Amino acid sequence: MVLPRVILKKGIKRRIFNGHPWIYDNEISIFPECEDGALVDLFTSSGQFIGKGYYNSHSAIRIRLLTRKNENVDEHFFSRKIIKAYTLRNRFVKTTDAYRLVFGEADGLPGLIVDKYSDYFVLQINTLGMSKFRETIVGVLVRLFNPKGIYEKSEGNFLKLEGINPVSEWLHKTGPILIPFKMNEITFLADLRGQKTGFFLDQRYNAKLLSNYAHGRRVLDVFSYTGNFAIHMLKAGANSATLVDQSKRALEVAREVARINGIADRVEVFEGNAFDFLRAVKPGDYDMIIVDPPALVKNSRATEKALNAYKELNLRAIKNLKEGVLATSSCTQAIKEEEWERTIYEAFIDNKKLGLQLFAGSQPADHPVSSAIYETKYLKFRAFTVHKIADI
Amino acid sequence: MVLPRVILKKGIKRRIFNGHPWIYDNEISIFPECEDGALVDLFTSSGQFIGKGYYNSHSAIRIRLLTRKNENVDEHFFSRKIIKAYTLRNRFVKTTDAYRLVFGEADGLPGLIVDKYSDYFVLQINTLGMSKFRETIVGVLVRLFNPKGIYEKSEGNFLKLEGINPVSEWLHKTGPILIPFKMNEITFLADLRGQKTGFFLDQRYNAKLLSNYAHGRRVLDVFSYTGNFAIHMLKAGANSATLVDQSKRALEVAREVARINGIADRVEVFEGNAFDFLRAVKPGDYDMIIVDPPALVKNSRATEKALNAYKELNLRAIKNLKEGVLATSSCTQAIKEEEWERTIYEAFIDNKKLGLQLFAGSQPADHPVSSAIYETKYLKFRAFTVHKIADI
Repeated sequence: MVLPRVILKKGIKRRIFNGHPWIYDNEISIFPECEDGALVDLFTSSGQFIGKGYYNSHSAIRIRLLTRKNENVDEHFFSRKIIKAYTLRNRFVKTTDAYRLVFGEADGLPGLIVDKYSDYFVLQINTLGMSKFRETIVGVLVRLFNPKGIYEKSEGNFLKLEGINPVSEWLHKTGPILIPFKMNEITFLADLRGQKTGFFLDQRYNAKLLSNYAHGRRVLDVFSYTGNFAIHMLKAGANSATLVDQSKRALEVAREVARINGIADRVEVFEGNAFDFLRAVKPGDYDMIIVDPPALVKNSRATEKALNAYKELNLRAIKNLKEGVLATSSCTQAIKEEEWERTIYEAFIDNKKLGLQLFAGSQPADHPVSSAIYETKYLKFRAFTVHKIADI
Repeated sequence: MVLPRVILKKGIKRRIFNGHPWIYDNEISIFPECEDGALVDLFTSSGQFIGKGYYNSHSAIRIRLLTRKNENVDEHFFSRKIIKAYTLRNRFVKTTDAYRLVFGEADGLPGLIVDKYSDYFVLQINTLGMSKFRETIVGVLVRLFNPKGIYEKSEGNFLKLEGINPVSEWLHKTGPILIPFKMNEITFLADLRGQKTGFFLDQRYNAKLLSNYAHGRRVLDVFSYTGNFAIHMLKAGANSATLVDQSKRALEVAREVARINGIADRVEVFEGNAFDFLRAVKPGDYDMIIVDPPALVKNSRATEKALNAYKELNLRAIKNLKEGVLATSSCTQAIKEEEWERTIYEAFIDNKKLGLQLFAGSQPADHPVSSAIYETKYLKFRAFTVHKIADI
């Protein structure tokens, strides 16, 4: 198939040749004549073929590369890519029947997220170009895995910029809105009316590691969503857990998860703002506080404001802990790990306390950081015991 | 007890008040009249008491603070500090009967390392000031833990600058030169004629996590020392392991560890240089390569040279891997995590390959990073699957 041609500007290719799949508008010398979302062939200024990707004139990222081979982007192509992604997970991902099967750019499928929850798949399609392959992808998933159902949950304001509409519907068969799955020997529920694809699978190892420090503790989990961290702590012997979230629905699902796991009597939920809740807490009321806020920042221009918010949250949590455990996280690639770490350290300093690190966490193997794409690194996690400076 | 007084220069106190225990020579306004190694009282320029520490005129770090309380530094003091350190470990450190009981500055005991190997302790004393308390510390350890033996293993060129002699001897009772201990259900040997306190306990979790990816692989472990990583991989089902180290003795100990664990038939050792060995390897000969070199840099002036060495090592390892696993580490605080990570990424780029991260590791809870002391952060670990750029 002959595709529209895109020619890069002279001298622009290092990042792209090194494996990064994004071509920005200011890197292109000759633009294609095609519809948004169409496939194009990409060449250097000297005519060397680079690869194929999809084009969108409404995005600063004009092209996202799908392949660096001169091959057709068809069912066979998606089948090969998804098998590759599956092979990596199948070999490496244990202790869960839920994981991220496709992690967009890192798996060479820009704009596509596929999460597996037991026998169901939940797709998230973030780009116009990828949305053109919706049926192909569903077909491939059905043929390869014969799932009980495939749901699409593509939401968010950025979709408008891409020129696509939100989608929340079953694409293949149907299933429950709350999909049960097992993770670290605990039953959880992915909520198809909740955030992202229904659950945050990326904190799986961090929650498990943190649960080593849960025994006997009164846990406060702010920004709890449906209670991933809190439930892990309770199953590992925490005395109690208080969940704080703005979403009534998320807290109801959390209660249901607690009930399923036989620990509902130790769970307390509070619908409200985490900043306010942390301000109102009496020091010593909790001996483990988990601070896992949403991104707090959407782009690199707002990082200072976001860092201030991280500092404020952690400052309040540390203030409330008397020799307890602080577990803190950041899930946005816009904040660099070192900046974020320094911010947490400053929160200790402002409390005249110090933290001794229990462990540092990152994202798991089914959400791989790609060495070629720095935007794939986003999840940061630290757990500390909290001490007065003079006590160490 | 009235101690010599040290007065800080005006305006110098923020870092110190925030929990950092080091006072540099250029931060002092009035120096004490005392012998090197003696205890001193530290005050601000306005006469506010800061704490007590020990003094050394031959070190750029003139004072290391032991306490911020106006208390005697005696047996009771060391007892309290060691119990505090033990309480943190006892609660948190699992799956091993060996761990770092005291991690110097992070535990408020600058210049002192105490590693526990089953029923034995191995001390490392790095400063003149701490060496004055040798007998007190031994007395406290005996009273608190009644160990089978306490060995001191204080070595290294920096001791000369401090004004103390190397020590390698039993301080309390005696024991074997190769001390057996259990870690992650494997028997290892701490070698009192080997490096540091005899073993590198800090890679315990990284080795365990990496072993999830070991099954069926031919493993190459360069800078293997006594085989911590290689033995973990073999016990987790690796087909074979080749250990490369400059030390004949380390390799002999590794063989003995392999024999004890019933896997000697799958171990091959090679005495020699890791750079040379990696250059000579045929691509595809191994499908997991572990690169865990010694510090490669002693101070912050030589970081560029060290980064080049990290790059060269990882470049050669990546070159040899066909879709295998690269496990790579850095154990020096002189190289910042971001710099080191970028260097590894560049090694991928120079090979026209990319890495998908399996996990990122750090140091364990018995080697805690202190939020107040950035020098306590030193261990960095990454595991990747290695791919051709065009294959993803």
